[in-house]
Amino acid sequence: MSELPSRVSLREVGPRDGLQNEEPISTESKVALLDALSGTGLRRIEAVSFVHPRAIPQMADADDVWSRVRRNPEVRYSALVPNRRGLERAMAAGFTDLEVVISASDTHNRANINRSTAESLADLPELIAAAHEAGASLQLIVSTSWGCPYEGDVPVERVLWVAREGVAAGIDSLAYGDTTGMATPSRVIRLVGETRSAHPDLPLGLHFHNTRGTGLANVYAALQLGVDDFDAAVAGLGGCPYAPGASGNIATEEVVFMLEDMGVETGVDLEALLEVGLMAERFVGHRAPSQVLRAGPRTRTVAAP
Amino acid sequence: MSELPSRVSLREVGPRDGLQNEEPISTESKVALLDALSGTGLRRIEAVSFVHPRAIPQMADADDVWSRVRRNPEVRYSALVPNRRGLERAMAAGFTDLEVVISASDTHNRANINRSTAESLADLPELIAAAHEAGASLQLIVSTSWGCPYEGDVPVERVLWVAREGVAAGIDSLAYGDTTGMATPSRVIRLVGETRSAHPDLPLGLHFHNTRGTGLANVYAALQLGVDDFDAAVAGLGGCPYAPGASGNIATEEVVFMLEDMGVETGVDLEALLEVGLMAERFVGHRAPSQVLRAGPRTRTVAAP
Repeated sequence: MSELPSRVSLREVGPRDGLQNEEPISTESKVALLDALSGTGLRRIEAVSFVHPRAIPQMADADDVWSRVRRNPEVRYSALVPNRRGLERAMAAGFTDLEVVISASDTHNRANINRSTAESLADLPELIAAAHEAGASLQLIVSTSWGCPYEGDVPVERVLWVAREGVAAGIDSLAYGDTTGMATPSRVIRLVGETRSAHPDLPLGLHFHNTRGTGLANVYAALQLGVDDFDAAVAGLGGCPYAPGASGNIATEEVVFMLEDMGVETGVDLEALLEVGLMAERFVGHRAPSQVLRAGPRTRTVAAP
Repeated sequence: MSELPSRVSLREVGPRDGLQNEEPISTESKVALLDALSGTGLRRIEAVSFVHPRAIPQMADADDVWSRVRRNPEVRYSALVPNRRGLERAMAAGFTDLEVVISASDTHNRANINRSTAESLADLPELIAAAHEAGASLQLIVSTSWGCPYEGDVPVERVLWVAREGVAAGIDSLAYGDTTGMATPSRVIRLVGETRSAHPDLPLGLHFHNTRGTGLANVYAALQLGVDDFDAAVAGLGGCPYAPGASGNIATEEVVFMLEDMGVETGVDLEALLEVGLMAERFVGHRAPSQVLRAGPRTRTVAAP
């Protein structure tokens, strides 16, 4: 067995990717969730996205949320932006960690932002220049990296092409998103392996959804390849817009539980995170899919009959 | 990366371990579920258990269920027995694949059958002799192999002691049960590795619960060690009696999806199994945790907007 990394860096995406796929909650609740998350030991939080409120009404109050958040100086907060306009808004709000999403699948990219993948890639250099000029970093998140809800399989070559174009444009880091949970360990191994071969020094993060139950298996496969940067959402917030009732992002509690139990440090206090998970469930008003939120850490015993 | 097995043998445990942790359903429904499962390509099904009806009312009609099942000659049906009385009932009903469960944790074993682990082990030789005399095989399932809901951690040495005693008594095969989902990949690697070292030729199956979300990660870790025998329950039937709302057994659909996608044959028709999963949900009257049951196989695309 390969050695696992001794430590991983988790990026909490519940406030953005999670809430984007829930019924809108109040600004106060979003602020409370972000403030609570920043006290759990998490060191990276994707706080908001600056998208058009007609496209994603859940994020319409991004500026307001961000202005009220009690910023923990030990946390790196990031914002997702769809285009130049969003980038300007994010930078005006003070964000210096920015993410742009481009779908490897043309159909998915068109459905999201009415442009082909190639058209979105053509915009990248300008976005990167604007970010860098303001001292901000820009990550490219490639969505549908392991499959598309409209097209099905997305060829690995196409995902690698998107990554290559991003690198050529000057992205600071890359993340692969498994938008609808279509990855399995062997697919993770292949894509990560080919990416590492092509771009050995590029910081690489992985963003898994648990739509088909394989989220933690994919994390484990990636860990064995030395990947030490993962996205997860508290409580497993957010569902899948294409599969009613299916899970969304992998749950941060589950990732923290598994990694810490294997001796891989996350820096996160699981008990504190579970409290925030229960808070998140109250805010969205339904039971979230996180299993550890139900069962607790493995140290939680019950009285014998 | 290590090579994965080209093929695994799944044992469907929904009709027994799954239903045991649900509100009782009708005999007709149990028979319909078993008959449907036997048409999916599954080649091993744990059909019933012969336990005292006061202990587990869900299995009170085991004889009746079994007498009505349309037996598929290509399927090996097994029965779980807690003691000599159950063994006699199972053999009288015609079962030749028998399983005895002993908990590695004393507290859990006492809670289940009011005996210490050592006392249960002392009964094994007699059970094995009776089974073998009738031409039946007997598997020892060690429950709480990765932790106990009452005691917490269960030392690996204790689990290995139970296995060793079983081997000395003449068991035909061994299975480790993660009764409340406390295993993670590193724990799987350690226990499987030490078991293989001690008993290289002993057939070994693994029985994971997804109580903390790590079920498929554990399967993947075990696959990398060459384990090719896993239990799973259709739809992820059954919950966890110690953690309300938590998942039970890993869902057969999820295991089949992941394995087949990685090129590991299961022999199971996923689409047919999904139909049975929906049937199982109707019978138990609530949504089951299987994610693939919600999202479908990765080939299930939706129309672009």
